[in-house]
Amino acid sequence: MTAETREIFAGRLERAARSAAQESLAGLVVAPGPDLVWLTGYRPPATERLTALVIGEGRRPHLLVPELERPDAQHAPGAGAMTISGWRDGDDPYAALAEQLAGQGRYGVSDNTWALHLLALQRACPSLAFTSLTEALPMLRAVKDDYEVERLAAAGAAADATYEAITGLRFAGRSEREVSADLARLLREHGHSQVDFAIVGSGPNGANPHHEAGDRIIGNGDMVVMDFGGLLDGYGSDTTRTVHVGEPTAEERKVHDVVREAQQAAFEAVRPGVPCQDVDRAARAVIRRAGYGEYFVHRTGHGIGVTTHEPPYMVEGEHLPLVPGMCFSIEPGIYLPGRFGVRIEDIVVCTESGARRLNNTAREMRVVA
Amino acid sequence: MTAETREIFAGRLERAARSAAQESLAGLVVAPGPDLVWLTGYRPPATERLTALVIGEGRRPHLLVPELERPDAQHAPGAGAMTISGWRDGDDPYAALAEQLAGQGRYGVSDNTWALHLLALQRACPSLAFTSLTEALPMLRAVKDDYEVERLAAAGAAADATYEAITGLRFAGRSEREVSADLARLLREHGHSQVDFAIVGSGPNGANPHHEAGDRIIGNGDMVVMDFGGLLDGYGSDTTRTVHVGEPTAEERKVHDVVREAQQAAFEAVRPGVPCQDVDRAARAVIRRAGYGEYFVHRTGHGIGVTTHEPPYMVEGEHLPLVPGMCFSIEPGIYLPGRFGVRIEDIVVCTESGARRLNNTAREMRVVA
Repeated sequence: MTAETREIFAGRLERAARSAAQESLAGLVVAPGPDLVWLTGYRPPATERLTALVIGEGRRPHLLVPELERPDAQHAPGAGAMTISGWRDGDDPYAALAEQLAGQGRYGVSDNTWALHLLALQRACPSLAFTSLTEALPMLRAVKDDYEVERLAAAGAAADATYEAITGLRFAGRSEREVSADLARLLREHGHSQVDFAIVGSGPNGANPHHEAGDRIIGNGDMVVMDFGGLLDGYGSDTTRTVHVGEPTAEERKVHDVVREAQQAAFEAVRPGVPCQDVDRAARAVIRRAGYGEYFVHRTGHGIGVTTHEPPYMVEGEHLPLVPGMCFSIEPGIYLPGRFGVRIEDIVVCTESGARRLNNTAREMRVVA
Repeated sequence: MTAETREIFAGRLERAARSAAQESLAGLVVAPGPDLVWLTGYRPPATERLTALVIGEGRRPHLLVPELERPDAQHAPGAGAMTISGWRDGDDPYAALAEQLAGQGRYGVSDNTWALHLLALQRACPSLAFTSLTEALPMLRAVKDDYEVERLAAAGAAADATYEAITGLRFAGRSEREVSADLARLLREHGHSQVDFAIVGSGPNGANPHHEAGDRIIGNGDMVVMDFGGLLDGYGSDTTRTVHVGEPTAEERKVHDVVREAQQAAFEAVRPGVPCQDVDRAARAVIRRAGYGEYFVHRTGHGIGVTTHEPPYMVEGEHLPLVPGMCFSIEPGIYLPGRFGVRIEDIVVCTESGARRLNNTAREMRVVA
């Protein structure tokens, strides 16, 4: 795997500054969280002590940190692309931050910046306006470079290995929670540093797309939806497969086939220039034609990167055109209340010639014990 | 252990509303995080989807949640003390939140509320002013009830058991990181659900109060500072002991004695009505008298509760008087750059008759192998 170099971070910082200027922003203020990780590789915890990166076109990025954390910041992979300064206990960190900002204009602020810091900054800079980064630049992190696609592929491969392993284990007679714990353990064994979700919905629980994993004992004849993912080496995985304990009925087989066909149709709809909503429409059309339209109750997909859910969204009303490098889920489903549910999900990357899957396990319904 | 009942949460909600009114606030807006846990027992993750509790005097508390999360919210221990309503995809959650707020005035906002939500709320309510909860009501959670003291005592006992266990293990020849991993494992084995820190500073690393744990191999003759804690059953632990590998020198013994005496002096300074800064002064006077004043480079203590660091702070300039039920650390230290450090820390609770320790392992320097 290629290394995440200073040049990569310098490129992202420059691109962010340019994008901000294009949106008539004076710049960006970025607090600890996924945006800071993506821009600098630095991942401090968010606390009551101010850490903030300031970006603007035509200026060197500036990271302000508590003085005691300066050595850590200087070891961040992107440290060489910015100036780092520390504030000491007793200093006013907001005055120090204000010095880095223009006298007027509008700044984008990372979504998860604490209110504690934003309110103090607003008071320190009464002539500035602030807007959330997602509102100002929703697609800042949406187009992945080769390095990022490689990392997402590695996370996807680990999730695939998890699926192969779990389907070799016993389902019947164990609780959803036990199978979920196995999924989480397997994701970690295959290199994940963080597990964000390990959903196991058996029988009627599979018909609730927001079910996580409960005490229900899985039995013979159950459909089981498994949706799991997290972070590996800083990048996300997210895949869903629906398996069956013992032989499925004809109806169960049919519903699964419809979802699989819908997933394939959405996959084939992906190419540069196509609006995101068309990916959703492609999946939805298949399900509607099969008579299950009212049972597909969520959007078709979401972006993925340094977080497991982020823009772009494959949803009706999202007119944004796909661009090579965008990575997102395709995850149609059918949910029959009180009975069972089916969902199939792969992460894909948009390339010049269409979509490429970053999950590659069989999408055919697998029978488990 | 007593149960955390609806009455306990109702009492906290009422007290918060009353405190807000006393500070001329129209009310409080509380997002997911420690304040929401303390007020309601509800612990959803913070996300881009708005969850907010509104409190004000003379009105029933109102929790606004994404509709899909409403069943979870309704199972929170404090759910019976508030009205819970859900917003659906497609609704404007900020308009729904604005309906719960007065037309004007100033609201306190929990510190860790996301900028995304605060900025949207400010736009939805241009006639309202907002201030951070810590600035408006720094002592909201500072005075613990009997139930909370019981929980902090349980967390402290688990940390004590961890210390007893770690001192039976080998230090010499192992890295700080290995001993730190043992501390984390032991905290979990003794019931902690979360480990916030497991600092191991050996030899010269112990002289840096912000050192965590590194690759240094601990050797015979080293002083080793161990500072560890996390959450057990929702409440925090935080204790420090400094041990010695093999027999200490006379100077090492002397420095340890001075810190122990300083810790005891601060402990004895605690009683209702005493300003917080007097606790700091009591510890500092002992260390200064012994000639080490310049080597005690941090405050003497911090509050603890549903987080491991919170108000009140035992620091020069904090004039707030101690009140029975306040729980906080007493942790003086001496740090001799390039040589070694000593810190001794207990959590204590202020009672009518003085301080009571929630950590009870011996403070004398222990010799380890």
